[in-house]
Amino acid sequence: LFNVGFEPLGRRGSCPEGQSLLDCARLLDVDIVSLCGGVSTCKRCVVQVVSGSVSPPTPEDMASFTEEELKNNYRLACTTYPESDVKILVPPESLSAPQRTQVEGLDLQVEPDPFVRGLKVHVQAPSLDAPESDDQSLWVALQNGHGIGPGQIDLKVQQDLSVRLRDQSWKAAVALRETEIVAIGTHAARWLGMAVDIGTTKVAAYLVDMETGKVRASMGMMNPQISYGEDVVARIYTAGKSEENARKMQALLVDALNGTAASLCEEIGADPSHVVDAVVVGNTAIHHLFLKLPVRQLGMSPYVPAVRSAVDIKARDLGLHLAPGAYVHLLPNIAGYVGADHVAMLLATEMDAQEGIILALDIGTNTEICLNCRGTMKSVSCASGPAFEGAHIQFGMRAAAGAIEHVRLSGEQLEIQTIGGEPPVGICGSGLLDVIAQMLNNNVIDRSGRMNAHPLVRTRDGRKEFVLVERSDNGDITVSQRDVRELQVAKAAIRIGIQALLQDAGITERDIEKVIIAGAFGTFIDVESAVTIGMLPPLPLERFSQVGNAAGTGARMALISRSRRRAAQRIASQDGYIELASIPDFNRKFAAASSMSWQ
Amino acid sequence: LFNVGFEPLGRRGSCPEGQSLLDCARLLDVDIVSLCGGVSTCKRCVVQVVSGSVSPPTPEDMASFTEEELKNNYRLACTTYPESDVKILVPPESLSAPQRTQVEGLDLQVEPDPFVRGLKVHVQAPSLDAPESDDQSLWVALQNGHGIGPGQIDLKVQQDLSVRLRDQSWKAAVALRETEIVAIGTHAARWLGMAVDIGTTKVAAYLVDMETGKVRASMGMMNPQISYGEDVVARIYTAGKSEENARKMQALLVDALNGTAASLCEEIGADPSHVVDAVVVGNTAIHHLFLKLPVRQLGMSPYVPAVRSAVDIKARDLGLHLAPGAYVHLLPNIAGYVGADHVAMLLATEMDAQEGIILALDIGTNTEICLNCRGTMKSVSCASGPAFEGAHIQFGMRAAAGAIEHVRLSGEQLEIQTIGGEPPVGICGSGLLDVIAQMLNNNVIDRSGRMNAHPLVRTRDGRKEFVLVERSDNGDITVSQRDVRELQVAKAAIRIGIQALLQDAGITERDIEKVIIAGAFGTFIDVESAVTIGMLPPLPLERFSQVGNAAGTGARMALISRSRRRAAQRIASQDGYIELASIPDFNRKFAAASSMSWQ
Repeated sequence: LFNVGFEPLGRRGSCPEGQSLLDCARLLDVDIVSLCGGVSTCKRCVVQVVSGSVSPPTPEDMASFTEEELKNNYRLACTTYPESDVKILVPPESLSAPQRTQVEGLDLQVEPDPFVRGLKVHVQAPSLDAPESDDQSLWVALQNGHGIGPGQIDLKVQQDLSVRLRDQSWKAAVALRETEIVAIGTHAARWLGMAVDIGTTKVAAYLVDMETGKVRASMGMMNPQISYGEDVVARIYTAGKSEENARKMQALLVDALNGTAASLCEEIGADPSHVVDAVVVGNTAIHHLFLKLPVRQLGMSPYVPAVRSAVDIKARDLGLHLAPGAYVHLLPNIAGYVGADHVAMLLATEMDAQEGIILALDIGTNTEICLNCRGTMKSVSCASGPAFEGAHIQFGMRAAAGAIEHVRLSGEQLEIQTIGGEPPVGICGSGLLDVIAQMLNNNVIDRSGRMNAHPLVRTRDGRKEFVLVERSDNGDITVSQRDVRELQVAKAAIRIGIQALLQDAGITERDIEKVIIAGAFGTFIDVESAVTIGMLPPLPLERFSQVGNAAGTGARMALISRSRRRAAQRIASQDGYIELASIPDFNRKFAAASSMSWQ
Repeated sequence: LFNVGFEPLGRRGSCPEGQSLLDCARLLDVDIVSLCGGVSTCKRCVVQVVSGSVSPPTPEDMASFTEEELKNNYRLACTTYPESDVKILVPPESLSAPQRTQVEGLDLQVEPDPFVRGLKVHVQAPSLDAPESDDQSLWVALQNGHGIGPGQIDLKVQQDLSVRLRDQSWKAAVALRETEIVAIGTHAARWLGMAVDIGTTKVAAYLVDMETGKVRASMGMMNPQISYGEDVVARIYTAGKSEENARKMQALLVDALNGTAASLCEEIGADPSHVVDAVVVGNTAIHHLFLKLPVRQLGMSPYVPAVRSAVDIKARDLGLHLAPGAYVHLLPNIAGYVGADHVAMLLATEMDAQEGIILALDIGTNTEICLNCRGTMKSVSCASGPAFEGAHIQFGMRAAAGAIEHVRLSGEQLEIQTIGGEPPVGICGSGLLDVIAQMLNNNVIDRSGRMNAHPLVRTRDGRKEFVLVERSDNGDITVSQRDVRELQVAKAAIRIGIQALLQDAGITERDIEKVIIAGAFGTFIDVESAVTIGMLPPLPLERFSQVGNAAGTGARMALISRSRRRAAQRIASQDGYIELASIPDFNRKFAAASSMSWQ
């Protein structure tokens, strides 16, 4: 055992020999960024060894750091092993940190008709002449007061019922889920529900009044699993490596949701024990990791989910601390890479009820696209990669303060806008879309993506790069030829997904009457830029609409409306799925779609 | 902390200061008998302090032991506190030990139609052309193979499903409970069920083949809660004293049932993970303690159960290790002292379908009696006390080897029969009934219960006693005047219960056409003796039948038959309940019923 300390967090503890610094960090709950899941390809888990000795630099370290940096003990945490007690400095860039998260979505237009409803009762106290049991007395009161016949009482609720009825002088409020009592409180109880959209990167949570259906509080945060890999493929790999990883990844999420429930409740002066229902959506991998379902088969052809059906499970069985008998409902999945979050998005945008030819996209590390062509819905999933989240981009970063999010270029005149108006520190996804569209418009790159000569283009180490920001202290912020290529791959993946759907339906892009762009990233992009670079089809801009976190909205709908929850089932079973890997001639099409001229 | 060791068991451990020796014994899982629940009235928890120092003798110790015994450090464990590390000798009489337990009951005449059935399936493996999820593939196979539509899959089963299907080449056996899959195995799987009758003193368990309904193995054992009080009133008191006691009492029972399931399965070469359903019955207090339901209200007027309805709960939620998704079903209760075991007895004896006027009794520490008077069923509960289990009887003991179980007296000629033919060590309940009936027949006692002069009656310390066995070594085994009084109280309780039912129905004892005697104790009694002493009504002997453990039989019926489980619900709701405490003029009637002449 070595004593390992992480600064500036001041987290320290004993770690077994043979564990990498990244493993140690996870053991001590230090959220070090690891986009690749710890296989030393992303080179993001940079740390500095302040004291103690560690294993010698690896080839990966040599490739990642300058001589000077190596001398200053900079290392990749994933390939470095302590050889004594050590103190480690984690640079801010290597830490997962709260960022801008989109929680706002479509306005709900749903009449509340929740699965769980609140009912006040006056219970008849038992006597020697009528020595009725406490459960029966409660059902009699529900029958007399509300015309509700007897059902079940959750055992945890039942364990509390007898004492509570007597303490509350036989007055109580009941939370009834269909036929089961899932919580009991005083007449003052105000029952709440929680809707959660767990993204690969971000989590959005909403606390909802179950009676009015109104959001009482909401918050966004990072998915804490991010230290186990930035995309789902990395997380599937990490979870498959050991039971312990899968267990920890689930526990991290559950802890985060418990913390979120507590914070949201505190914000409105309520208690998580009043949260009587929850709806959770996420992509299929996140869904499976959350339920501790196996994910290996998700990572291997034919990429099938363990579970497609909607799941109802007691919150406590997952380790969630809500009302004693509360359930968590997970919307159904459609396929290995088209998950419950996609269903929620389709629910929120009412894709099944749309007329004409409508396209809906949720753009992210994985982009799910649905085409409703005159009543027939099909979906496809494209691995658009983490470029939009800033990964694999030289100065890429997630949408945090200081990220360049919008860019305008006219001739040599460059205007940039950063998140929060902070001094620029990197480029986030929407900024990258913008800058590449502007480079294209200004002939800085040609249609194939190759960089031309331009006053802002320079050559360093034999490689061309476009200078976005000149900084004297930290070095310049630039866009490299390779960054352009990364974006080309990402946009090609999306465009080819759209094409596959159109081809399947026997229509062309021009036939599309409406394009709905959902998701946090989709909210912030400049649609014109996305069209310019060929990520989205060249349609009149008025056909596009950006709807924010539609998956979160769908989760809220399923929380407060029984008919919407049923609709989600219907949507999931109606929505056809096209597996891109089974498209003939895929590689040629993909190459073509990478071109900026591919319209 | 003191180090406390219990001999001859060799159990030792650290116990906090201020804990009685009885508390220490419980802490270390030493099953010391405590009939009163540790309030120093039963004087059964006799121990000998072998080394170390303890608190000085209490008045209770003085009253319980001779000078000599006190000098030899005999003490009551419940009022003695260690004052240093101690070593304690527990005499065999003070230990709860396995005893003769009746597991045989009525023969089942029930067509198996269980809630959980086994189905073999061949699942279609997914492909890129048909990338179906594993849950959907399974439901498709169930539809195609058995015409069963989609339902739910228990999450624990689901967590195992994907790997299992692939390991088993897409062949599987499914245990389906109504619409939910609760276990999955290979085609060789043979699904089992477990029926358990938890008595206050004894537990009977049956392992059943779910397909044939046949008992594959069965066993009886002591209820390990016995160290927390011999009757339910003592246990209610102990459980009410602290959460920790209630928790431990539940854990003891769960551990015992887990051990039982494992033993029964081992006996037939099976595994508890194949036990896909369980039915548990017990009296209301036992039922509540098993489910960690509050019991305080059971001990206070109007003595109402927390739960009357049948309960279905995942076995794992109770800590039981059966099949991953298995449920435990608890039959409904009727009243605070008429529990699910009574319902099971009524189910097994088909009391609801009987014609005419039928009486059924389950005699025990608590005796439940049901009268079916031409289609109207009512039940009553009488606190017959633990005399039948040997408590409060000078030489009383439970039905273990060496217990005198049958006695014949003609003149001065005495014949005794012991369990197992062992040298006599005490008198069990059936022996006590016999000897008192024989004393009555031979005028050793008169109708009021008073002992007359007789060659076998002697006076010791001014008290009369009847000498059953003369022993040179351990002292004689005798029946005291007080023992006779104890039995009078017990039999009066039962008889007055019968009377209350008859009076309510407006009939007399002579009208009773059939008397069914259920329960372990009831199996072994001599009915003639019971009639002689006035415990049972004076009816022709052919009207009586002894049916063994009918509660266990009822539990098995509910395990293997859906219609019988529904019938139990019907019986529980149809059966009326008479609260003895609300009978007018109860005390006078009770006094009258105590007389041996009260017929």
